[in-house]
Amino acid sequence: MDPDTVAKAFVEHYYRTFDANRAGLANLYQEGSMLTFEGQKIQGSQNIVAKLTSLPFQQCQHNITTVDCQPSGAGGMLVFVSGTLQLAGEQHALKFSQGSFYVLNDIFRLNYA
Amino acid sequence: MDPDTVAKAFVEHYYRTFDANRAGLANLYQEGSMLTFEGQKIQGSQNIVAKLTSLPFQQCQHNITTVDCQPSGAGGMLVFVSGTLQLAGEQHALKFSQGSFYVLNDIFRLNYA
Repeated sequence: MDPDTVAKAFVEHYYRTFDANRAGLANLYQEGSMLTFEGQKIQGSQNIVAKLTSLPFQQCQHNITTVDCQPSGAGGMLVFVSGTLQLAGEQHALKFSQGSFYVLNDIFRLNYA
Repeated sequence: MDPDTVAKAFVEHYYRTFDANRAGLANLYQEGSMLTFEGQKIQGSQNIVAKLTSLPFQQCQHNITTVDCQPSGAGGMLVFVSGTLQLAGEQHALKFSQGSFYVLNDIFRLNYA
């Protein structure tokens, strides 16, 4: 598969998992992975998933608008995502564009900024 | 300097150069650098600057709201920027958050997504 196809498949898998079973994101992070959330740096799969599952909304749906990808560094891939986030009970969707992934070597080792 | 300070200094330098002398951005890209612009991949310092200087506005001012940085890969740093873009003659500033930099080794070798 070409890098763009891998990036799109990865992003779809990530947000489908986020919306359906947030705890399942643990499989997509490693101990060296880092999440930056509103300026706070959170390291390691367990800590990252603890943060994501503690967010003050339970049901949500991400709709992806754009996925851009480019090769970067040693076997890495930089992926930038924009889209909307629909929260249960909210009339209007929120725009999001904070999804900037750095995927190393294979799609199961990543940093999420 | 710690990585956050380097990232902030780099981003301020990048956008100050963008607003004052867009052609001067050539010094911040190398031949291996890549710009993704509305889905189009543009490689190499000369091609990237040709694209940026051909954008349909001459005067602009970027105002940076957030700079997030995290170490990624071999000596690299992933930097995510959000802010507003004020164009000359336009009343309202545009939001931007497309600035995702991958800075390798030193601040003069980067990819800009």
